[in-house]
Amino acid sequence: MIGKLTIIGLGLMGGSLARALKAKSAVGEVWATGRRSASLEKGLALGVIDHWTLDLAEAVAGADIVLVATPTLVAEQVLADLAPLIDERMIVTDVASVKGNMLRAAESVFDILPPRLVLGHPIAGSEQSGVEAAKTDLFVDHRVILTPLPGNDVEAVNTVRQMWEVAGAEVVDMAVDEHDAVLAATSHLPHVLAYTLVDALAANGRAADIFRFAAGGFRDFTRIASSDPTMWHDIVLANQQAILDGLDNFAGHLQTVRQLIADGDGPAIKQVFARAKQARDEHFLGQYKAGRKPSSD
Amino acid sequence: MIGKLTIIGLGLMGGSLARALKAKSAVGEVWATGRRSASLEKGLALGVIDHWTLDLAEAVAGADIVLVATPTLVAEQVLADLAPLIDERMIVTDVASVKGNMLRAAESVFDILPPRLVLGHPIAGSEQSGVEAAKTDLFVDHRVILTPLPGNDVEAVNTVRQMWEVAGAEVVDMAVDEHDAVLAATSHLPHVLAYTLVDALAANGRAADIFRFAAGGFRDFTRIASSDPTMWHDIVLANQQAILDGLDNFAGHLQTVRQLIADGDGPAIKQVFARAKQARDEHFLGQYKAGRKPSSD
Repeated sequence: MIGKLTIIGLGLMGGSLARALKAKSAVGEVWATGRRSASLEKGLALGVIDHWTLDLAEAVAGADIVLVATPTLVAEQVLADLAPLIDERMIVTDVASVKGNMLRAAESVFDILPPRLVLGHPIAGSEQSGVEAAKTDLFVDHRVILTPLPGNDVEAVNTVRQMWEVAGAEVVDMAVDEHDAVLAATSHLPHVLAYTLVDALAANGRAADIFRFAAGGFRDFTRIASSDPTMWHDIVLANQQAILDGLDNFAGHLQTVRQLIADGDGPAIKQVFARAKQARDEHFLGQYKAGRKPSSD
Repeated sequence: MIGKLTIIGLGLMGGSLARALKAKSAVGEVWATGRRSASLEKGLALGVIDHWTLDLAEAVAGADIVLVATPTLVAEQVLADLAPLIDERMIVTDVASVKGNMLRAAESVFDILPPRLVLGHPIAGSEQSGVEAAKTDLFVDHRVILTPLPGNDVEAVNTVRQMWEVAGAEVVDMAVDEHDAVLAATSHLPHVLAYTLVDALAANGRAADIFRFAAGGFRDFTRIASSDPTMWHDIVLANQQAILDGLDNFAGHLQTVRQLIADGDGPAIKQVFARAKQARDEHFLGQYKAGRKPSSD
């Protein structure tokens, strides 16, 4: 049971967590704050939150848990703004897509990292955004990755874990670097590739025909290129090095495959394709068999 | 009204065309032939075809239209096998995913291209394959690209066009080179990228975590990496040059984007992402508005 939860940056993620905790009567009151009143007013009208204020100090005063749910790069600044306001019992956690930049921001803000600062990342999302899209079951059967730090207060980490579990998520721990490398590979790199492919094709002299005759495979493949450019620009800058590593690894493999195609090396091409199909099918079919709902990002 | 239609290589495509034409009473009898009897027997039992034989000459004797519906590279050989069997009134057409290799195969088989050889490519497909997956409406609201050749008999081209229109497709004409370049960009290149990405990640030391935490975006993005490796190996070899051109163009753009990320050039990164989102949304939202069903490949 959380007495007071404060959400900084009220959108889909924070709003859905508030709804989920309220549905389970796991929170006393939910406060929200942010830079503009529009989404805060909306959240209050929808019953997602109980109180709002534009004053950060008022918002977090007496909070048991403060959830930083702003865009990724803004979250770095929010840590700095929070620094003079957090007390020894307050837990601060977040939902940002990259964890290394948050850790570096915290290290530059604090002489000693607050033991109750617990970094986290729910692997969930929706086509929609904004508090009006918030829903009670957004995190059900989805994973939340926590990246506990060596100095972390164990009780604080457990409280954050339980909060997400109450919301229906499966919580797993990971090192900060590993989180960022895994997310670079599975999410950030695919977004960069999809954006780049669509942009390259749009610049093509045959662009009109290319889009006109694009089939279902292309539509699936490029769906993530319709994601919010500002949010993804934030993520790319926040996770720069891991994404560059992933890009270089991919580009190297692509040059190998290019050479196989140029050589007309049928058996080797078929081997690459078959290996990829097997890896994908094995994993995803296995996951479906286990009854896990496909998660979206 | 087609008197006798002969399908060489009875699978999803030929079977679905047969079903569609029968449903509209647009064909007298459907014959099929191939290298093995299993799918032919199945097609007969399902009522998709009326007769089958392993003897190519018997299968095509007296046919009004011969549809070559084998895998892409086999289709080249089928043209050679057909050469001594086609007469002046017989229309030969195909469904292969690449048209340049079929044209080159025809040019090497025939001194003068048969005026009633009409190359075509239905942009349709399904997760399933095989004659047992054949369905009457596979081509409804999908596009069929014909690539008429300078020496083509206009009446033969029109007959093939009408056949596909009866099956519910929208038929458009395109030059062979343009077809292959457009399909390389929208279908073949995305398949190569998806196979390469999954194969690269599967080779990664973090492969288990990578697949475990793959989110919905990754699942969509890599869905085409579950496609049949043999079929796609055929397509890559058949459309080698256009795919290499597409790959090089993409790799160049990717290096540009890589440099923007390495430079931390936020505004330029956001511009690429926003341009791609706009291109994709404009096209696909426009297409949805026009009521066109998303086609699969």
